[in-house]
Amino acid sequence: MDIGFIGLGNMGRGMAANLVEAGHRVTVYNRSPDKADALPEQGATRADTVSDACRGEVVITMLADDAAVDDVVFGERGVLASLASGAVHVSSSTISVALSQRLAVAHADAGQQYVAAPVFGRPEAASAAKLFVVAAGAPDALARLTPLFDAIGQRTFVVSEKPDAANLVKLSGNFLIASVIESLGEAVALVGKAGVDPLHYVDILTSTLFSAPAYQTYGGLIARGEFEPAGFAATLGLKDVRLVLAAAEDMQVPLPVASLLRDRFLALLADGRGHQDWSAIATLAGRDAGSDHSA
Amino acid sequence: MDIGFIGLGNMGRGMAANLVEAGHRVTVYNRSPDKADALPEQGATRADTVSDACRGEVVITMLADDAAVDDVVFGERGVLASLASGAVHVSSSTISVALSQRLAVAHADAGQQYVAAPVFGRPEAASAAKLFVVAAGAPDALARLTPLFDAIGQRTFVVSEKPDAANLVKLSGNFLIASVIESLGEAVALVGKAGVDPLHYVDILTSTLFSAPAYQTYGGLIARGEFEPAGFAATLGLKDVRLVLAAAEDMQVPLPVASLLRDRFLALLADGRGHQDWSAIATLAGRDAGSDHSA
Amino acid sequence: MDIGFIGLGNMGRGMAANLVEAGHRVTVYNRSPDKADALPEQGATRADTVSDACRGEVVITMLADDAAVDDVVFGERGVLASLASGAVHVSSSTISVALSQRLAVAHADAGQQYVAAPVFGRPEAASAAKLFVVAAGAPDALARLTPLFDAIGQRTFVVSEKPDAANLVKLSGNFLIASVIESLGEAVALVGKAGVDPLHYVDILTSTLFSAPAYQTYGGLIARGEFEPAGFAATLGLKDVRLVLAAAEDMQVPLPVASLLRDRFLALLADGRGHQDWSAIATLAGRDAGSDHSA
Amino acid sequence: MDIGFIGLGNMGRGMAANLVEAGHRVTVYNRSPDKADALPEQGATRADTVSDACRGEVVITMLADDAAVDDVVFGERGVLASLASGAVHVSSSTISVALSQRLAVAHADAGQQYVAAPVFGRPEAASAAKLFVVAAGAPDALARLTPLFDAIGQRTFVVSEKPDAANLVKLSGNFLIASVIESLGEAVALVGKAGVDPLHYVDILTSTLFSAPAYQTYGGLIARGEFEPAGFAATLGLKDVRLVLAAAEDMQVPLPVASLLRDRFLALLADGRGHQDWSAIATLAGRDAGSDHSA
Repeated sequence: MDIGFIGLGNMGRGMAANLVEAGHRVTVYNRSPDKADALPEQGATRADTVSDACRGEVVITMLADDAAVDDVVFGERGVLASLASGAVHVSSSTISVALSQRLAVAHADAGQQYVAAPVFGRPEAASAAKLFVVAAGAPDALARLTPLFDAIGQRTFVVSEKPDAANLVKLSGNFLIASVIESLGEAVALVGKAGVDPLHYVDILTSTLFSAPAYQTYGGLIARGEFEPAGFAATLGLKDVRLVLAAAEDMQVPLPVASLLRDRFLALLADGRGHQDWSAIATLAGRDAGSDHSA
Repeated sequence: MDIGFIGLGNMGRGMAANLVEAGHRVTVYNRSPDKADALPEQGATRADTVSDACRGEVVITMLADDAAVDDVVFGERGVLASLASGAVHVSSSTISVALSQRLAVAHADAGQQYVAAPVFGRPEAASAAKLFVVAAGAPDALARLTPLFDAIGQRTFVVSEKPDAANLVKLSGNFLIASVIESLGEAVALVGKAGVDPLHYVDILTSTLFSAPAYQTYGGLIARGEFEPAGFAATLGLKDVRLVLAAAEDMQVPLPVASLLRDRFLALLADGRGHQDWSAIATLAGRDAGSDHSA
Repeated sequence: MDIGFIGLGNMGRGMAANLVEAGHRVTVYNRSPDKADALPEQGATRADTVSDACRGEVVITMLADDAAVDDVVFGERGVLASLASGAVHVSSSTISVALSQRLAVAHADAGQQYVAAPVFGRPEAASAAKLFVVAAGAPDALARLTPLFDAIGQRTFVVSEKPDAANLVKLSGNFLIASVIESLGEAVALVGKAGVDPLHYVDILTSTLFSAPAYQTYGGLIARGEFEPAGFAATLGLKDVRLVLAAAEDMQVPLPVASLLRDRFLALLADGRGHQDWSAIATLAGRDAGSDHSA
Repeated sequence: MDIGFIGLGNMGRGMAANLVEAGHRVTVYNRSPDKADALPEQGATRADTVSDACRGEVVITMLADDAAVDDVVFGERGVLASLASGAVHVSSSTISVALSQRLAVAHADAGQQYVAAPVFGRPEAASAAKLFVVAAGAPDALARLTPLFDAIGQRTFVVSEKPDAANLVKLSGNFLIASVIESLGEAVALVGKAGVDPLHYVDILTSTLFSAPAYQTYGGLIARGEFEPAGFAATLGLKDVRLVLAAAEDMQVPLPVASLLRDRFLALLADGRGHQDWSAIATLAGRDAGSDHSA
């Protein structure tokens, strides 16, 4: 298939490479041109403009945030202006539900197809084609995209015909991870103040009821008080909680744990720690208990 | 070893049987005598009084709550009055930190040893000797008990020399499970209102970041709205959250998620649903969103 | 003074009339023209366009929300385009801190002055010139405006040289009122379930420690369960809480009570009650207690 | 009337003096005898034992907490053992609903009457006979007590025939005051970070919508950061919030604001500030915002 791929960050690079590997003709574009350098040697063609990356049947965008997607899609000679009628825009970025809704309307008006396909997984999973793809859109478009999803991930979940439902599922996953961080922070503050070693405690949890990646990854960071350098910065954590709350507000869904998380992230930023890993909100329960074991 | 075992409920029965199996001489006692009937055939001796179960080197109690433990230990001709000097009381019940502290003082005053060894695991794990034992107490007492813990569980975690630390760890585990239930309830309320199928959603979560027993067990119950009969009743969930909050208050540790959980359990009980499984608090987020998908 | 007055709703009408009464030459404009009909008989001149209302030294805007102010100020031939250099725009609307900041920059760039002067008080107070004016802006501009503030209010509080500080104070006042509503709702749910008559209870409160208008007004509505017609609709309450939270987020200030209020308003809207008075959120505590006495 | 009065603290002293003033024969008792010295000169008789203070038709207790009341009433030769059949025990202390219920049962069993009559007001109001009395109990008992209530207060509110309802109303009043403190703390953190002077801000609030004693007293303390010496210590604030939550839990009433207050008081105590005035919890919002203006 002729595929454009826009956004060659830590995630996008691995995804694009796996599409090449699977035999597709991939034209890559990155806004800062140096990041696109590596791919061509691997068999991808380099585009100098967004427009040049939109000449195939499919263009995939994997960008940092709403602003970047907005710019690349709605900008002059952007995706919307460049994509052929009937071609598909696959948005894999973690973006707001509201932007995904705007994209759906705009592409439909332009006679193009639009699918949301955000992914779960870290950069290593992207390189290893082990992502989980959460996809939503028109069934025929999704059917055409199956080989692409298979090339980048280990499993694809189709959640709805409405693209923005996939974005909501992705955002809800980040909300659930942040919930784990907060509750672990409270539990560690409690048992830590009673003299139980946090590392040993997390080992108990992850050996028994909580043997899941989210607990292993973040439990370790919290127990070791290891928040720099950030795997995912607190400022980004706040952004995602804000997106969840915004989507929930539009749908009139109160989320008290998400409200608490938002307050925690704000307190962390107010303390000058927005650059730390988002799991650093776990230290606030310790601070409130008079014993910040992470400091 | 000569062991007394008090409390032959769903959990205690399996634990006592495994001690017999491992070659120990086990004398069993249950407050309602019928439950003790099964064990003797399996090689245990039946005691008619608490006192008769306290003649060995070790007595293990596995009872429902603080009141039952208080009664059996401090009552006339109870454990405290009956246990030999130097013998050990192993308390495996899920009890309050405060009661565990009282037990430690009382046994020390009586020249007896006291170890807290609550367990993680359901009745099937108790039968299969697959429990996780969280133990705390004097190192010499714990050393003597190693073969017993090995007989009932797959792994023992020693968390402190202070017995009540083990009770706190156990209670914190239940707090973390309840936190999972609440955050899943909010996430399901959100994506469910957007039309995503809750069962499919929980499948995504447990296939990816949340592949842990707590998410599998409770995610399924929540997605299916299957709260009766209760595996663990909401009234007991409230009790455990109350015990966590009480221990945290004594140690001056604020736990905002636990405070929210307490409010959720109260709302569930006020709605006449205290008999349902504790995972039914997950429906309250749906109710607040105007769409209780469990009803 | 030559004054333009834009926005003749329940509040603006009384304010404009009092400016006429005080001897000023007032030119009034309202977007839906029928509302402007009453004023001319009282001595004001009617303008057919925003621009016509901007020919004097001062133009006051008293509009419903951000969108209305944005439209009137930034629209074609709007306040920004029409106001003379050195003239003052006095914004009395309850708007976001962010919009107030944009107005400050835009007017400064245009060589105009900008003062924020939101008011506390209901329509009756506006008619009776009994408003409280919360003003912020450049001291020389505020000095020129003193006679105008005296004409519409009983007292003026100058809070800052930065105009948006006055908007923040106004929004915080609405946050405090909503906090009163929530805590009264919880207290009434509690004593009501114990059989104490809510009306009698509110009488006790307002006769003793809480003899303030906020408690008298809302305590009465809550005790009587009298939420329609709305004095101030729940949808507007949510809007103001959202504006407070947005301003607080920009300044990295967590507000847990405001977060709770946001969740309450969302639950009320999800229940189809957004048209009720904002004090109806008080019923949610009663619903959670299994005894909504307002229904 | 022949009246016993037990408890001559800051509040009790003024109340007892006003009963003497009104012409009653008052026998006073205080557990630490020195405090009883002043009264006899004012016309009261001094009792050396609780029992001696229980020889009349009525005995009033005005003590610090549940423990003190429990001791004085249920202790050997206490109120319960000493009071004549048909005589009335009037409990004016701020105690738990649960203890008030136990008192009602015990007095009924002993053929005595029991009325709860907690008061609103500070020591100066007690001296000036300006208290507000919140009374509950059997109508005939309340009728007999009318002259006594009139002697100590400016107004009496009868809330129920069940005595503990009066205790609940009293506790709910303290909950509402603590709610005011928290919301003021959040509002001051917000506007203070924007540069608005806290004292000026509180002046605006108390001049407009919040012209009530609770806002004036605590707003001033918060704005000035004046928390020592405590008028009412944070440890006592926590105790009262705990009593409200305990009563609410028994009645299955979730109170999210009270849950937040409990967490705030715990954080304050964990910070070593339990001796400060309870209004010091207001500083925690400022700390979370990175700007504790009270320090």
